[in-house]
Amino acid sequence: MPKGLLHPDIPHQKGIFRQLTEKATCFGTDSYHLKKLILQPHRFSEFSLKTPEMFLDFSRQRIDSDLFQTLIRLAKQTNACQSFSDMAGGKMVNTTERRAALHTGTRDFSDNPLKPKLKIDDMDVDSEMNRVNREIKAFSSALHQGRIKGSTGKFFTHAVVIGIGGSYLGCEFAFEALKQSIDPKIMIHFLPNVDIDNFYSVTKKIEPETCLWIVISKSYTTTETMANLAQARLFLKAHGLSPENHLVTVTSKGSPGDDPSNPVLASFHMFDFIGGRFSVTSAVGGVPLSIAFGFDCFERFLKGCHTMDTHALTAPESINIPLVSAMISIWNTFFLNYTAQAIIPYSSGLSKLPAHVQQLYMESTGKHASPDGCFLTQPAGTIIFGEPGTNAQHSFFQLAHQGPAFPIEFIGVVNPAYDGECAKSKGVTNHQELWANMLAQTLALATGKENDTPAKYFPGNRPSSLIIINDLSPESLGNLLSFYEARTVFEGFILGINPFDQFGVELGKVLASDIRKEISLKNQSLNNKLEYEFDHLEDAKKFYLETLFKGSLE
Amino acid sequence: MPKGLLHPDIPHQKGIFRQLTEKATCFGTDSYHLKKLILQPHRFSEFSLKTPEMFLDFSRQRIDSDLFQTLIRLAKQTNACQSFSDMAGGKMVNTTERRAALHTGTRDFSDNPLKPKLKIDDMDVDSEMNRVNREIKAFSSALHQGRIKGSTGKFFTHAVVIGIGGSYLGCEFAFEALKQSIDPKIMIHFLPNVDIDNFYSVTKKIEPETCLWIVISKSYTTTETMANLAQARLFLKAHGLSPENHLVTVTSKGSPGDDPSNPVLASFHMFDFIGGRFSVTSAVGGVPLSIAFGFDCFERFLKGCHTMDTHALTAPESINIPLVSAMISIWNTFFLNYTAQAIIPYSSGLSKLPAHVQQLYMESTGKHASPDGCFLTQPAGTIIFGEPGTNAQHSFFQLAHQGPAFPIEFIGVVNPAYDGECAKSKGVTNHQELWANMLAQTLALATGKENDTPAKYFPGNRPSSLIIINDLSPESLGNLLSFYEARTVFEGFILGINPFDQFGVELGKVLASDIRKEISLKNQSLNNKLEYEFDHLEDAKKFYLETLFKGSLE
Repeated sequence: MPKGLLHPDIPHQKGIFRQLTEKATCFGTDSYHLKKLILQPHRFSEFSLKTPEMFLDFSRQRIDSDLFQTLIRLAKQTNACQSFSDMAGGKMVNTTERRAALHTGTRDFSDNPLKPKLKIDDMDVDSEMNRVNREIKAFSSALHQGRIKGSTGKFFTHAVVIGIGGSYLGCEFAFEALKQSIDPKIMIHFLPNVDIDNFYSVTKKIEPETCLWIVISKSYTTTETMANLAQARLFLKAHGLSPENHLVTVTSKGSPGDDPSNPVLASFHMFDFIGGRFSVTSAVGGVPLSIAFGFDCFERFLKGCHTMDTHALTAPESINIPLVSAMISIWNTFFLNYTAQAIIPYSSGLSKLPAHVQQLYMESTGKHASPDGCFLTQPAGTIIFGEPGTNAQHSFFQLAHQGPAFPIEFIGVVNPAYDGECAKSKGVTNHQELWANMLAQTLALATGKENDTPAKYFPGNRPSSLIIINDLSPESLGNLLSFYEARTVFEGFILGINPFDQFGVELGKVLASDIRKEISLKNQSLNNKLEYEFDHLEDAKKFYLETLFKGSLE
Repeated sequence: MPKGLLHPDIPHQKGIFRQLTEKATCFGTDSYHLKKLILQPHRFSEFSLKTPEMFLDFSRQRIDSDLFQTLIRLAKQTNACQSFSDMAGGKMVNTTERRAALHTGTRDFSDNPLKPKLKIDDMDVDSEMNRVNREIKAFSSALHQGRIKGSTGKFFTHAVVIGIGGSYLGCEFAFEALKQSIDPKIMIHFLPNVDIDNFYSVTKKIEPETCLWIVISKSYTTTETMANLAQARLFLKAHGLSPENHLVTVTSKGSPGDDPSNPVLASFHMFDFIGGRFSVTSAVGGVPLSIAFGFDCFERFLKGCHTMDTHALTAPESINIPLVSAMISIWNTFFLNYTAQAIIPYSSGLSKLPAHVQQLYMESTGKHASPDGCFLTQPAGTIIFGEPGTNAQHSFFQLAHQGPAFPIEFIGVVNPAYDGECAKSKGVTNHQELWANMLAQTLALATGKENDTPAKYFPGNRPSSLIIINDLSPESLGNLLSFYEARTVFEGFILGINPFDQFGVELGKVLASDIRKEISLKNQSLNNKLEYEFDHLEDAKKFYLETLFKGSLE
């Protein structure tokens, strides 16, 4: 397997790395200012890509034809497409954890007899996934038809998803976006945070008797999720309800959440070859989204993902939308030295997309080691942040135009979910106003504007891409989800990291466990009316734990 | 007035700038690794500050005593405290717009006869502000008592705030945080985005007859706000309701929103000497928050702000919490070259704080010019982003620990809003678990951990601060709001920029207007069944506008 761009064995003084570095120097000069680049003939057609579902315009990125060819050569040299195909074929691409990464398998319903059978440890992946989906379909439809009810015989009207990180962010993105155009049959609330106030605010929105709790944890040991489950059980009992009639689990086969001695309404399996941040199209998203909108809607979402998966798997490098997007991210981060990227969807329905991509991308690429155990030449990854436009224009676009520059990925939606009567202001509808602003920002950032007064001078030369999708239909949203997954994975393969592990979160867990032990000892002592002081701890820890128990800074 | 740190007349080869640059080189060496620094005797007491309302621990920042003294000298040399005092005293500190910046005046109720009378253009500021507050108090109490009703005679139960940027983000932060412990008498929804789907999703949550619309715009010309107002009027009429009985405005005296020929239920004044992002404690926040929680609650919030204002105004540099926090931000950004800062509140009630501070800070400091009209030596400002902990741990903390480093400001709350029965998991309550994680993260980031396997090695040396507040009471939240305002203003003064203007958002508005005109012409042509083509536009604009009107990418 070829080594990635940041592998220490890749000589940075020659070959493609050197070419890109030299090009970056050129792009620092005036003649490569974006206001000049965008005037090149055929610029827009040369640097835009299109499928029926998605349009990517990267003509306002700081690139030219020659550079684009070099980036494509880098993708070829690092075998990105082959690695992607290995991934979709079930190979053990998550080498550090010795696992496959088969999120694309969750949405591949093709009955092509030539399609190779995916086998993992003798498990027939397709039929297992189909089985889980059939269970989700049967269960959600039984809920909607009122054949499954709460312990006092009432229909379920609300559900709370207990899950954090990958068991939460992607599902919340999809739920909030789908909710724009489809009214939920059962309203979903999310309880990710171990903060008791998250629990408190969620329980203010539900009726205990008509609420279902969906506990999502692969291992069924995630600290936050187990703590919230304990609190939910207390809540159910306090309201005289039997937890087994109000709980559903999404977890690994054989985990404590899948133990018949601990009965629940239903338990749906997830697989260790699908990582949390890639799990929206597994039961992790499938259970809540089917409960909210029906399994049919979830299936349409999966089909949208599969369309993009097929594109990512089959399109040659230079017209492969997620791959090209990954290459531009690499160019911006490692050669033009931008240290963050913004995602600005001009759609309030996509307001939770930046948070999902933030996790997907930063947890996948924020690494300093190669899969073969070397330190990279520099840490990989970059910060992702974002808010919907036009909100963002009235928040941080002052800095985007005149402060330290960062690349932006704009997302536009051709048709809003709303289809009622529209007022016009200044001669245009709200949706048209939204587009006018989106297009204006991409231009303003690129071209800038001269002015003798520094405060009114706009340097321009700030790169952005524009992604267009047709609407907020399940198909379009699936397509968009899969685009970001593929872009992230491609970037990981090209940089030469494992995008599927996350060893960097372990140290925090270990240290939290030490502090938890101290708190627990103090709790026990208080229960037994014994003394337990924190004097053996260093100053800071002692102060914080004493403050926590005292309940005040004073 | 002394020139700020980034002014071109400040010689970067000598004086304090050089000292800080040399110090930064030291801090790049192994002996200045945070795991060593935090072992220095008295480290915690030396680098922490405390008022009864707030604790700031900056002992895990990459600083030492000598550096700290240099930073304080910089604050003194740039006259930061004097400028702050000038600001609070009503001087024209917003020099480029020739205005005062008197947000601190909105919460100064002291009846100290020695307090200088604030006069702006012959207006007695205190009595004007008191008048507006009395009006807010009377109006909100009339709403709560049902003396003011909708046009069909029903009580108001919901209100929609139409406002964007500074007329939205701070108020949303305060509303979401206060809502944790105080049940709203009238539920507030926010309609910032011109996206029609924002309007659509808000209207799904209200009953037209019992909903009040609060329109917030200083000029009453903000494009998004006027477009949403037009849509709201259409909605009210479609439901047979008279807009004048359902609308309230918060706007400048004499603006089109304060025009008696355009009747509304009530109109509350805002002042041009209070900028949008600093306006939460003016009528901008006062009207929605008093309508939601009662004027008494808003008043308590103001008192909390005033406590911090007084601290910021009177505490000497080295024990001034917002000033010290600003100095650390400057050190991290301009000498240690971190390019972003995260704000991670370990409290789901503070989940909207990062978005508010993102605007407050990035719009205030994202500048490239000095108030006296010079280009700075480098653009000021840095990216702010964040999500609540522990959510963030399961999202982007992989990158925070092993990717490119960025400083983090953690925020802890001693007492949660919830005061019911608590389950225990692993021997601790959810709130205790939250704190264990928060403390563990600050330590893990600072100390890191050796390991022969690169993927399991933690470099550490990642700086963070920890801010503690007592609870989510109105007083504590006001204190926190004012802290971030003061920190931002101090940083602006020290860097040598005007933190109160935002000329960088103008170009986007101009270009949007050009595109809007094209769309409007096309709309008119369609209405008149005439042809209007976009052929005269450049390729990209033509494609996007055609796609918008066609309604599909295909």
